[in-house]
Amino acid sequence: MHQPDTSPARFFELENFQLQNGSTLPRVRLSYWVYGEINDAADNTILFPTWFASTRSANSWLIGDGRPLDTSRYAVVVVDAIGNGESTSPSNVSPDLAGLNFPKVSIYDNVRLQVALLDHLGVGRLALYVGRSMGAQQAFCFSACFPDRVERMFALTGSAATTAHNYVFLDGLEAALSADAAFGRPELGEPRIGLTSFGRVFAGWVLSQQYYRRGGWRRESDVNVETYLRTHWDRYFWRKNAYDLFCQIQTWKAADLSANPVFNGDQEAALAAITARTVVMPSRTDLYFPPEDSVWAISLMKNAELRVLESDYGHRAGTAASCNMDVEFLERAIMGLLQK
Amino acid sequence: MHQPDTSPARFFELENFQLQNGSTLPRVRLSYWVYGEINDAADNTILFPTWFASTRSANSWLIGDGRPLDTSRYAVVVVDAIGNGESTSPSNVSPDLAGLNFPKVSIYDNVRLQVALLDHLGVGRLALYVGRSMGAQQAFCFSACFPDRVERMFALTGSAATTAHNYVFLDGLEAALSADAAFGRPELGEPRIGLTSFGRVFAGWVLSQQYYRRGGWRRESDVNVETYLRTHWDRYFWRKNAYDLFCQIQTWKAADLSANPVFNGDQEAALAAITARTVVMPSRTDLYFPPEDSVWAISLMKNAELRVLESDYGHRAGTAASCNMDVEFLERAIMGLLQK
Repeated sequence: MHQPDTSPARFFELENFQLQNGSTLPRVRLSYWVYGEINDAADNTILFPTWFASTRSANSWLIGDGRPLDTSRYAVVVVDAIGNGESTSPSNVSPDLAGLNFPKVSIYDNVRLQVALLDHLGVGRLALYVGRSMGAQQAFCFSACFPDRVERMFALTGSAATTAHNYVFLDGLEAALSADAAFGRPELGEPRIGLTSFGRVFAGWVLSQQYYRRGGWRRESDVNVETYLRTHWDRYFWRKNAYDLFCQIQTWKAADLSANPVFNGDQEAALAAITARTVVMPSRTDLYFPPEDSVWAISLMKNAELRVLESDYGHRAGTAASCNMDVEFLERAIMGLLQK
Repeated sequence: MHQPDTSPARFFELENFQLQNGSTLPRVRLSYWVYGEINDAADNTILFPTWFASTRSANSWLIGDGRPLDTSRYAVVVVDAIGNGESTSPSNVSPDLAGLNFPKVSIYDNVRLQVALLDHLGVGRLALYVGRSMGAQQAFCFSACFPDRVERMFALTGSAATTAHNYVFLDGLEAALSADAAFGRPELGEPRIGLTSFGRVFAGWVLSQQYYRRGGWRRESDVNVETYLRTHWDRYFWRKNAYDLFCQIQTWKAADLSANPVFNGDQEAALAAITARTVVMPSRTDLYFPPEDSVWAISLMKNAELRVLESDYGHRAGTAASCNMDVEFLERAIMGLLQK
């Protein structure tokens, strides 16, 4: 069985990469992995980018010999998003670009870098683009802007464009993080209070009312909810870099599959331009990517099917956190898509 | 027509009031209004306390001659909650009790003070207790602990006890507020950043995804959502006192109709003890008091009816903010209850 977590990352670098916001990154580095082998026809590649505040270890549960993304048949390319701390990010660049000096990066910037990486790997057309959450936002943008380069698309708990409510949710996270006096003042040290505050706000949004009602967190530890917040969420975000989170929030807030020179903001045209055979899978209880937004998106797409994940895990449905319950549903959707 | 907003408050004071947490307030002052006249039989009184972060001006739209709480027939007593800045609060006490020195106040403390106020007014039994949000939490506690003193109860967008998810939501608000370095350090001035952060987090929770999807805020001003946050929510919470908000959040987090010597934490027994004819009215889209929690509560009550407010205003359904849409539905429920 494939053990993706121990393999070293590979790197792909570009110089003088111009971002959509006008600034130029003198050097941009994508960190990525290829699980399985790209075949001679180069028609068996699956792209599966990371999502917000996460690295490839969160992707790996779906990948492997006999797993839904089956490395005995497919080559699965996992690529770290700009700003996630592995690819070029506020936390790993020279001081003039570090922290809040890091430029705003768009979904379209990430997508163009992915296209360059696929060129580098000799992959013309993806067999499948799998994106979750902010990764699904990339899947929509990639499939709209580069329809010839993607055969199939699977968008899990994400959206074509960040909605007003999703924006407000993100703005609250950003406000909670940046309320720390140390935020933006590295001489005062790490903004630990802001990271704590970020996690406390996030904890209510990322899971659902139903999850908390049944005491879902007690699967992890039999503690009261206050202890759960302290032991799970505080520690989770203390491991993150505040400026990387901030960078990714900016990307997410502005996410829009049509916010680029291809579509100039015409979301309906962008959705209609997607030719990939698509499954869009929201979670029934997702508080910031609710199913209604997926219903709207597929109503404008040519070849898309809605499959709602009936889960009380909120936005965490379809991740390793809920895998025992959701893996079969996911697997069937992915298998079905790949067989078409 | 009655014009409640211009009448002066009346005050009711008690000395050496012992709180549930063990501390004693040397003097506690309730600020209240009586709209209409208490009749000779003293059987026409409606109690309608304030809710979180609000004062009586938010209650007044329901009250008046010919309004749902009709002052031509009923005497409507509006009482400010402890911590709301009008009744005894962190912002209006002596320095030794001010700010974070203010003791933790429970729903049961508020309820016992209301009973004392009704004694003072000569009202033995209420015709109706109307409570919204944290006020509904008081209605549940009052009706469970003092069943002989309330004939009817109307609980709007609230709960019998704060659920785990509601607690997490509140904890996020508290974390966003207290992340400001000035919070708890009055020598650094008002925690304006914390109040901003609080409002930004609140804005996503208090309204619904559906409200934002249809651009509901544009009723107020035709601006983008970022401008709406800045002009509406920032200014709204800048007018609030951070320590009053903090005090009320502590009350809310611990809200539980059974957290008192009468029921010792037995929520089912407390709900079963309510004899008042009751209407419980959650909002379909309320993100922190979802209808499911009301369904649970009435399933344990003797004489309670569920009426879900079909609104996309989230937790703001049934307030002045949504009055044009909801007032008839509310009025019918209240009228129906009063005629029984």
